[in-house]
Amino acid sequence: MTDKTANAMWGGRFAAGPDAIMEAINASIGFDQRLAAQDIAGSRAHAAMLAAQGILTTKDADAIREGLLTVLSEIETGAFAFSTALEDIHMNVEARLKEIIGEPAGRLHTARSRNDQIATDFRLWVRDQADAAQEVLTALMQALLAQAEAGADWVMPGFTHLQTAQPVTWGHHMMAYVEMLGRDRSRVADARTRMNESPLGAAALAGTSFPIDRDATAQALGFDRPMANSLDAVADRDFALEFLSAAAISAMHLSRLAEELVIWSSAQFRFVTMSDRFSTGSSIMPHKKNPVLTENLTGLARMVRAAALPAMENVALWHERDISHSSVERMIGPDATITLDFALHRLAGVVEKMLIFPENMLDNMNKFPGLVMSQRVLLALTQAGVSREDAYVMVQRNALKVWEERVDFKEQLLGDADVVAALGEDAIEEKFDMGYHTKHVDTIFKRVFGTT
Amino acid sequence: MTDKTANAMWGGRFAAGPDAIMEAINASIGFDQRLAAQDIAGSRAHAAMLAAQGILTTKDADAIREGLLTVLSEIETGAFAFSTALEDIHMNVEARLKEIIGEPAGRLHTARSRNDQIATDFRLWVRDQADAAQEVLTALMQALLAQAEAGADWVMPGFTHLQTAQPVTWGHHMMAYVEMLGRDRSRVADARTRMNESPLGAAALAGTSFPIDRDATAQALGFDRPMANSLDAVADRDFALEFLSAAAISAMHLSRLAEELVIWSSAQFRFVTMSDRFSTGSSIMPHKKNPVLTENLTGLARMVRAAALPAMENVALWHERDISHSSVERMIGPDATITLDFALHRLAGVVEKMLIFPENMLDNMNKFPGLVMSQRVLLALTQAGVSREDAYVMVQRNALKVWEERVDFKEQLLGDADVVAALGEDAIEEKFDMGYHTKHVDTIFKRVFGTT
Amino acid sequence: MTDKTANAMWGGRFAAGPDAIMEAINASIGFDQRLAAQDIAGSRAHAAMLAAQGILTTKDADAIREGLLTVLSEIETGAFAFSTALEDIHMNVEARLKEIIGEPAGRLHTARSRNDQIATDFRLWVRDQADAAQEVLTALMQALLAQAEAGADWVMPGFTHLQTAQPVTWGHHMMAYVEMLGRDRSRVADARTRMNESPLGAAALAGTSFPIDRDATAQALGFDRPMANSLDAVADRDFALEFLSAAAISAMHLSRLAEELVIWSSAQFRFVTMSDRFSTGSSIMPHKKNPVLTENLTGLARMVRAAALPAMENVALWHERDISHSSVERMIGPDATITLDFALHRLAGVVEKMLIFPENMLDNMNKFPGLVMSQRVLLALTQAGVSREDAYVMVQRNALKVWEERVDFKEQLLGDADVVAALGEDAIEEKFDMGYHTKHVDTIFKRVFGTT
Amino acid sequence: MTDKTANAMWGGRFAAGPDAIMEAINASIGFDQRLAAQDIAGSRAHAAMLAAQGILTTKDADAIREGLLTVLSEIETGAFAFSTALEDIHMNVEARLKEIIGEPAGRLHTARSRNDQIATDFRLWVRDQADAAQEVLTALMQALLAQAEAGADWVMPGFTHLQTAQPVTWGHHMMAYVEMLGRDRSRVADARTRMNESPLGAAALAGTSFPIDRDATAQALGFDRPMANSLDAVADRDFALEFLSAAAISAMHLSRLAEELVIWSSAQFRFVTMSDRFSTGSSIMPHKKNPVLTENLTGLARMVRAAALPAMENVALWHERDISHSSVERMIGPDATITLDFALHRLAGVVEKMLIFPENMLDNMNKFPGLVMSQRVLLALTQAGVSREDAYVMVQRNALKVWEERVDFKEQLLGDADVVAALGEDAIEEKFDMGYHTKHVDTIFKRVFGTT
Repeated sequence: MTDKTANAMWGGRFAAGPDAIMEAINASIGFDQRLAAQDIAGSRAHAAMLAAQGILTTKDADAIREGLLTVLSEIETGAFAFSTALEDIHMNVEARLKEIIGEPAGRLHTARSRNDQIATDFRLWVRDQADAAQEVLTALMQALLAQAEAGADWVMPGFTHLQTAQPVTWGHHMMAYVEMLGRDRSRVADARTRMNESPLGAAALAGTSFPIDRDATAQALGFDRPMANSLDAVADRDFALEFLSAAAISAMHLSRLAEELVIWSSAQFRFVTMSDRFSTGSSIMPHKKNPVLTENLTGLARMVRAAALPAMENVALWHERDISHSSVERMIGPDATITLDFALHRLAGVVEKMLIFPENMLDNMNKFPGLVMSQRVLLALTQAGVSREDAYVMVQRNALKVWEERVDFKEQLLGDADVVAALGEDAIEEKFDMGYHTKHVDTIFKRVFGTT
Repeated sequence: MTDKTANAMWGGRFAAGPDAIMEAINASIGFDQRLAAQDIAGSRAHAAMLAAQGILTTKDADAIREGLLTVLSEIETGAFAFSTALEDIHMNVEARLKEIIGEPAGRLHTARSRNDQIATDFRLWVRDQADAAQEVLTALMQALLAQAEAGADWVMPGFTHLQTAQPVTWGHHMMAYVEMLGRDRSRVADARTRMNESPLGAAALAGTSFPIDRDATAQALGFDRPMANSLDAVADRDFALEFLSAAAISAMHLSRLAEELVIWSSAQFRFVTMSDRFSTGSSIMPHKKNPVLTENLTGLARMVRAAALPAMENVALWHERDISHSSVERMIGPDATITLDFALHRLAGVVEKMLIFPENMLDNMNKFPGLVMSQRVLLALTQAGVSREDAYVMVQRNALKVWEERVDFKEQLLGDADVVAALGEDAIEEKFDMGYHTKHVDTIFKRVFGTT
Repeated sequence: MTDKTANAMWGGRFAAGPDAIMEAINASIGFDQRLAAQDIAGSRAHAAMLAAQGILTTKDADAIREGLLTVLSEIETGAFAFSTALEDIHMNVEARLKEIIGEPAGRLHTARSRNDQIATDFRLWVRDQADAAQEVLTALMQALLAQAEAGADWVMPGFTHLQTAQPVTWGHHMMAYVEMLGRDRSRVADARTRMNESPLGAAALAGTSFPIDRDATAQALGFDRPMANSLDAVADRDFALEFLSAAAISAMHLSRLAEELVIWSSAQFRFVTMSDRFSTGSSIMPHKKNPVLTENLTGLARMVRAAALPAMENVALWHERDISHSSVERMIGPDATITLDFALHRLAGVVEKMLIFPENMLDNMNKFPGLVMSQRVLLALTQAGVSREDAYVMVQRNALKVWEERVDFKEQLLGDADVVAALGEDAIEEKFDMGYHTKHVDTIFKRVFGTT
Repeated sequence: MTDKTANAMWGGRFAAGPDAIMEAINASIGFDQRLAAQDIAGSRAHAAMLAAQGILTTKDADAIREGLLTVLSEIETGAFAFSTALEDIHMNVEARLKEIIGEPAGRLHTARSRNDQIATDFRLWVRDQADAAQEVLTALMQALLAQAEAGADWVMPGFTHLQTAQPVTWGHHMMAYVEMLGRDRSRVADARTRMNESPLGAAALAGTSFPIDRDATAQALGFDRPMANSLDAVADRDFALEFLSAAAISAMHLSRLAEELVIWSSAQFRFVTMSDRFSTGSSIMPHKKNPVLTENLTGLARMVRAAALPAMENVALWHERDISHSSVERMIGPDATITLDFALHRLAGVVEKMLIFPENMLDNMNKFPGLVMSQRVLLALTQAGVSREDAYVMVQRNALKVWEERVDFKEQLLGDADVVAALGEDAIEEKFDMGYHTKHVDTIFKRVFGTT
């Protein structure tokens, strides 16, 4: 008989123990300990089913289920000592269970493999992340909605290319983000629906000959049904990629909002200022107040995206190790998800607490006084019968004066005989009335309020 | 008055014409000419609505709508000469329309901007790609299903780590991919539903004061409704990112199938051989038959994924240029989509036409004769009351002989007194019956057939 | 004998001609036609060597070399008709050569394979790109240097977090980019040196038994030496990845400069304005002048980076198709390189022609008047013996007033008895002298001028 | 006077303490504690310089330098308690230093900012990684070289498309990787040279007015010189991107080797088998021996690449936070580097210890007996005067028989009257002599041995 001590975990198959580096690399406990709650929930459901099917005695199953709750509570209170020699969360939990309840612990692994176990754990974990993401997306949407409602009538410059284009309202601008985040949330919801099938029972790759009840474990874990194909169940992680793709798209939206907030809180724009709670100072420049939480977001958004992509291509179905025990979970799971979660929580706080300066928005719109109305004047001229080309030239020659001398655009137009002849002075005056824009833009986004 | 000839497109605003390189870079016609059909469909719907609202005369609208059909037919027949001086598809079409119908062509742009126009064109185009992707995904699923049904009973080695693990069936293996592709298809369908809202009417960014009917254009173009927020409408392209994320996940699945087909068609495995239609030879090695179409897929899958990611982060809403006129459409649209389309068409052909050698699968399973049954023997021993640890050692000591001397595993077991004592000779014989696996695996995936 | 017409290129091996889609996908001529000049240079060197070694007759070699020049001139003048049926640039050129010089054309392929041929072509092409990149990087550095010298003494606000931090000079800020681009250029130079070895002679993968002279072809093509290993020669494309990594890092630098130029050309900052040559207007807002060429760069930078990454991982040496004939060249070569080239040319033009408004920089530094000097005051207080903590509080209480009431910081300090007691009025006045910063910063970057 | 307790770190500027989440997010100590040794080395050099310049007393400097060694030893022995309230490594070290040596600790920060401090720390850390990478790359090259020398004469099939193409030798194949890794190593060396400049003295962004000696600190820390521009010094991290690009290219090479080793260790190929030290078994299949350490590499290679890319684009110079205190170091530094380091160590072990089966290589080459020689026969026929097209058909018709009936190719050729007429029987026999290939290939890579 071969030496049973040669390899702590695998028995006599190996003539030599693994190198130290192999243990270091092989151990996934450093990151999969986050799956502890899911691992234990899965094992408890599995044990209950085994008992119901007569594969385990009720007594054993009860001992296992109770013991697992003890392990969970040890983990939650920080009393649990994770061991890299035991490689992963499954074996850490099982070893501790054996210490607590003794020999029946070994029967928990009946009719199961680490392959379907990790597939189940990870799926439950990503499902939890999806639930959390929907909640915090809603919180940020509500913070934006509150800002939109508070400033529904504040006129602000709408930009293209960071050049003032046409007036919009603060409320309308905020609601653009509410729309985007609403789609983000529905993407996450779709991903959650699609992933909600149970891999349990696939065993290593080909199922098991024990008379298990896959519907029972699926139901106990809140899955809609068991997965239909055992190879698919253990070998695919597309559900995580889908969730992370949705997260990456949402992170893109967050980064755009963050970029605007940084620019808007510069001394030059000063549409907003961050709450002190979300700013930092400088050790050598006592006057500084840096919108650092917002700014960090632009980098973090890139992290989410980067995390979403390496993944699984060219990993033939047999490459179990690449997709099952470590790499995918290690790469695409925790960091990106936590990053998004942080970002959403943070931005919800930033948006809720920031101070708005509507008078600065108006002031900014008039850096080149009145120019922001050029589109309305152009339109009025064409509606008054001036050809489009002539109208363009009439507006532009006055606009150039404003650019070069920062004179007032309305005064310029009132002094241009051609323009006055075409429109009349009253009509020119009317084009510079801000109330128009408030009302106009308001009608566009009215229906969105209250639907979040 | 400034010189009207200074800048062909923008009139007198600019004192100097753009540098040649600016034209080269600014022109997007090189890639957005693929949006011609969508651009013309959008313009025709817009013109009809303008007439219905009394903004255009019916006569003008009819001339425009007819003229646009002429332009479309010129483009489809290759008679159209695209011009980089006219920058993009919108202005190429409009300039040709003017040549055909004269002055009314200029009125088409009433109550519209290139910003909502390109947003509409691109959304229609991506929607078309999503429809096409669903179709060809279905074709590949059907090819896989046909292979699965033909070889439902062929026993083949199931691998982990490219090491033979347990027997599965060819049908079961094929059906794993059917499951994956089915999820891919539903992802594309979800993306299509979410994107199906009309940006038309958002104009540059703040809507228009013309009394347009956004519901009418939305309906005419097959959209479910108009988008709710004008800034969101012109500034976001998340629908393209979502479609490409779905495409990238599908490409990952395709690359895994492709990787398996390449390995399976090696002389060493020879489970399959590609049809000559999907192979190439060598100019200097007359014996070669290379599975090149399959192999290329692994690289192409990476292309889809790479195309999906750069995108839009940190692009504040005002960065219209980055997201609207060129970069996003240029980056994330056509190449990735065409690549996926090619890959799916190709793989559907490859799978449909490939020859399968079930006898080689059996032969491969027995490179180390009988070892693939070790799990069944281990299970039988534990069910017969041998402790798990002892059973593991009993199986493994016989397996080692097979590894080292390539003797037959069943014969080894029959010669091991401990194993025979625990199981009896008949039970040992029975564990090596292939029929068991066919039946067993069959029950797992039975319900999937016919549901595609 | 099998049907020789079955497959145009591969002779009788294949029982069926390839599907149409196979031709479409397999053909690489759509992108590798850019390698025409390099392909012909390589073939001319190969033919000359074959003659020198007595493998070809001098007459044949001369005919081939002359004929190839004719083909090249046809390609350069646009007279050449590329054919997808002939798949790639090699066979397009060879087929045309045969039309021109007849039967000796067939002998050109002696002692060579398409594998070492494409490896050579692509290496020559990337080397050309590296040369071009070094040139245009130098042009942009010179444009930046010219701006730096013109505004060496203009004081501008230095930012952290887009919040005004301390004064710097325009010249110093420009020179930061000169430093970065200088490293970019040296990265490209290193890549060029490393890639400059000849793959010719590796044939398909194992060399050839013809008595070729690899040193001769290497020398004729400007390579430093032949590559040492034939498998490495045909199977690796790390040289392209290295060049593209360098390009991506440079694109990152360009995107940072572009981002600053967009912000600086906003009405709110207005440090600079783009030349009209590098701006566009708006069809409906006649006053607009958009810094679009600069802005586009931020998106293009992402393109370069995306292009650099998919590449070659998991492509075992035998995956020739993935790395040799199409995917890598298709993916990582042309688009990214052209994108970088465009970006550099464009930015060189933008920087050279932009107008600077130094008075606006001063004005911007004083949005909150005098605050930018807080670090100097803090330092002076500690040097005068005030404890760091007390000094921080003294500066900050005055800074807060400036933030809240936009009063003048210097006046505040002069009215603060503690500060005046510690420093004296003259020392306070002196801290707000701009000349200090000009001189101070100047000493830091002085030595860089003229070294480009 | 404002409340000094409001914000632990920033003094009275902020009216409210930061939210808990801000502390969680802002704290970088979780990852930058790896920079401890570099941080302390930088501070010790800075303190020595301050004393030499008379800015600190020698007594203070000595106390600081001694105290820092104590802190370092506490960190190295695990006795140090890191605090997230103190945010980062700089403040953790400084706070502990103050506990140890008291008030002089505060003077260490004179003439320095956290901006140039982190820039220095990170540069030193990446430089250390580059040194380590060169060492372990050398170790892997030596393991490959040893395998190449041991099997210099073993003939093995050379593949294209995983189809047997022509014979090569094991030694030649191993040496291809030696070549690749040699370029990887020189890339790392170039990156190291380019990054070796000191950012110290740049302070926040604009230098300091203290009379510091930048050359002295540069020299003390092993840098070649101080950086020339202060904005560049604090704002750029291209050195890390360059190192990671080199790492990603190397990871690509490693993944190709790993992919080959996995395929070669399959039962179907069995060219090699991993040492038990680098394999794992299965809990339910006692016969399994999985090449898991090698396989994992393919996923890890993707991690390195993913880590290398998000980075810094669009981060204008003022985005200090994005590039300085956390995001870049967090994203692009540690994980990728450690991953590469693991991979290299692991693969060096795998290659050193793996068992080779040269007889299986020969056996594999003859799955379709003799076909691998088709190129030699084709060449011989053309050299004997048969036209290329006729020769191709003659070889191919015999090859087809081998494909279809697995008969022996040489026997086929000896039975083909046309072939025998053209070549004679002896010449045919000679083409199947393996010695030729050993010798032939050997000459190609001979000169490489011993140069590593």
